[in-house]
Amino acid sequence: MADDQMGVSVPATPDFATYPITPVAAVRIEGDALAVDWADGGTSRFNRFFLRENVVEDETVNSQTRERNTDVAALPDDLAMTAAEIDATGAIAIDWAPESARTRHHPGWLRATADGRGRPDTHLPAKQSWDKAAMPEPVSFDGPSVLTDDAALRDWLRALYTYGLARLRGLPDEDDLVARVAERIGVIRSSSFGFLFSVESKPNPDSNAYTSGALTGHTDLPTREMQPGLQLLHCRENTCPDGFSTMVDGFRVAEALRDEHPAEYEALTTLRWVWSNRHPRFDYRTSTPPIELSPEGEIAEIRMANALRADPDMAEADVPRAYDAMRLMMRMVSDERFVCRYPFAAGDLVIFDNRRILHGRDAFNPNGGVRRLQGCYLDTDELRSRLRVLARDGVV
Amino acid sequence: MADDQMGVSVPATPDFATYPITPVAAVRIEGDALAVDWADGGTSRFNRFFLRENVVEDETVNSQTRERNTDVAALPDDLAMTAAEIDATGAIAIDWAPESARTRHHPGWLRATADGRGRPDTHLPAKQSWDKAAMPEPVSFDGPSVLTDDAALRDWLRALYTYGLARLRGLPDEDDLVARVAERIGVIRSSSFGFLFSVESKPNPDSNAYTSGALTGHTDLPTREMQPGLQLLHCRENTCPDGFSTMVDGFRVAEALRDEHPAEYEALTTLRWVWSNRHPRFDYRTSTPPIELSPEGEIAEIRMANALRADPDMAEADVPRAYDAMRLMMRMVSDERFVCRYPFAAGDLVIFDNRRILHGRDAFNPNGGVRRLQGCYLDTDELRSRLRVLARDGVV
Repeated sequence: MADDQMGVSVPATPDFATYPITPVAAVRIEGDALAVDWADGGTSRFNRFFLRENVVEDETVNSQTRERNTDVAALPDDLAMTAAEIDATGAIAIDWAPESARTRHHPGWLRATADGRGRPDTHLPAKQSWDKAAMPEPVSFDGPSVLTDDAALRDWLRALYTYGLARLRGLPDEDDLVARVAERIGVIRSSSFGFLFSVESKPNPDSNAYTSGALTGHTDLPTREMQPGLQLLHCRENTCPDGFSTMVDGFRVAEALRDEHPAEYEALTTLRWVWSNRHPRFDYRTSTPPIELSPEGEIAEIRMANALRADPDMAEADVPRAYDAMRLMMRMVSDERFVCRYPFAAGDLVIFDNRRILHGRDAFNPNGGVRRLQGCYLDTDELRSRLRVLARDGVV
Repeated sequence: MADDQMGVSVPATPDFATYPITPVAAVRIEGDALAVDWADGGTSRFNRFFLRENVVEDETVNSQTRERNTDVAALPDDLAMTAAEIDATGAIAIDWAPESARTRHHPGWLRATADGRGRPDTHLPAKQSWDKAAMPEPVSFDGPSVLTDDAALRDWLRALYTYGLARLRGLPDEDDLVARVAERIGVIRSSSFGFLFSVESKPNPDSNAYTSGALTGHTDLPTREMQPGLQLLHCRENTCPDGFSTMVDGFRVAEALRDEHPAEYEALTTLRWVWSNRHPRFDYRTSTPPIELSPEGEIAEIRMANALRADPDMAEADVPRAYDAMRLMMRMVSDERFVCRYPFAAGDLVIFDNRRILHGRDAFNPNGGVRRLQGCYLDTDELRSRLRVLARDGVV
């Protein structure tokens, strides 16, 4: 397995990306690590086991799946590098003991690794929170282009990742079109609502969504251990003059709570509620605070749906302040300073981060016209995967 | 909305379960809470907002979805109970201010709430870890019965929840039978492998699973933010004399690490690795320790797949001890004292907790016979939901 760049045989890399040959000034062994001085400055160190298990040869990496065959646990405890040099191709060659072997590593792959190309946040834009002033209506893109053009897809998905919300316009009224759009990103997540779902007021509803009443800002399926990461809603027809859609950036609301109401923010990020659905055939439940923080303390996820919030899951003494904080957050979520409100027009498709954005709608007169939506869910890592593949493929 | 039990009209409850009328000795208002003395002893206290938002009337709970319409944020800050009594039906009646109102609550529902019936762990059996001595082969159940009999379904699922592993036997070789079994539990989770997947050695594999090589114990899709919670594998045909299946309880291995190798256990529960797949069309990545603990410090999840473990995601100084701990865990996962090894016979279907159990197989001679499996995934909360619904429906 070897690439062939500029007529020189360089080592293959253990993934599907390509890397430039990065000039190396010097290499040396420092105990268990290989130190690499880059020609453009700086030094990186690579552990002996990391280097050995990432050798790319037919016997160490399956050439078709690119999955590793090397069993690092079977390597000897006293595995050691005995010599290292930069060979004629620019590759880093290492001699090993106790079993004699010489391996070659692609310096571009090592450099990219040292620079963090393997991290989960690679190729993802920074998130930006917003309020009504910053987002009077959803940022919009041409729908038909996204179906066929990878650059248009990339622009739309980067906006989605950044703002948690992006809209496509000009799409036709076609059955299951929402699935075609979703599959431009990744694998659709089925739920108790089905593979796709239609939102119309209907008899015998199994969710308040399927009525004509107002829906205050909420996340969907907060009762699930992991809420769906993305929701797509395609407006196929809407002749109702009322029933505007609403979107609120839950991250911005959480930031405002943090800055303006620190005691309530503390309660909202630490005290857990049970989120529980009520259904003849399902009984999903999970217990979390409405605002979840990352291990680093950053605002990471919002869970909010008044209809599905059940018991306070906390000490009795904490219940009064938990209700005070919950009621404050609910009022802020409806505060006009945060609400992006817009008519949901036929041909539009909105996609939003269901673990960040609270979506809702004003009440509408079900006799005032026809309102037909079709939607589906995907998990967040489908979006991250697609953004990385687009970047890897050079659509940057 | 009112049930009618024994000729007496009692208040409805806000969910689909039924509750006995629980005798109440006395009720009294204690500031913001209602104190209820139960006739069989003990006192429970209920917050004013909790009581008010869980009133079941046509205007407060949608009678079809059982979803709450009451907006707790719109209730007055000075909401107060002015009087409370046990009425002639045994219900708890409360008078409210500042807006005059009288409400009635079902005492059985309140008692069940105080007893924790609303918690996520309700109706779930305790988990029990196992090693080879305790689990020489998977606990087994009659497959055809599970397809039609809810009591058989309950027994199988309780064993699955307890041990993380359970087997069905005697199933026919039918296309998509694995989906019929899975849908007895809940909604199937599609993945980059599709809605269902077939495991046979095949040309151009996109996973090492689709070769005839040995697979050491691993979890599937560790590269996903949330690993699939359950995996089903239906053996439709197996005439290979070799290639036995293996199952290891990762929780037991983690317990052994905790008890016998505390320094390595600490490294395995705190130092993160990137789990990354290599695929032409997908690039899923996540970063976690191989053993994840709950907020309470209990062993909660195992992530292990040598082929998909990528960069150490930690300070350079931690990398040597992280590799030492990882290599130890990999050796323990293959230690015969933990391995349940068994021939995978035609007609068998195994289901296991993919966030706990490491599954694998010995190498087999692909020319020695035919080996055809079909499988799919579900998320863990589908299992918890089904166990709760079976219990609610009286299949206990």
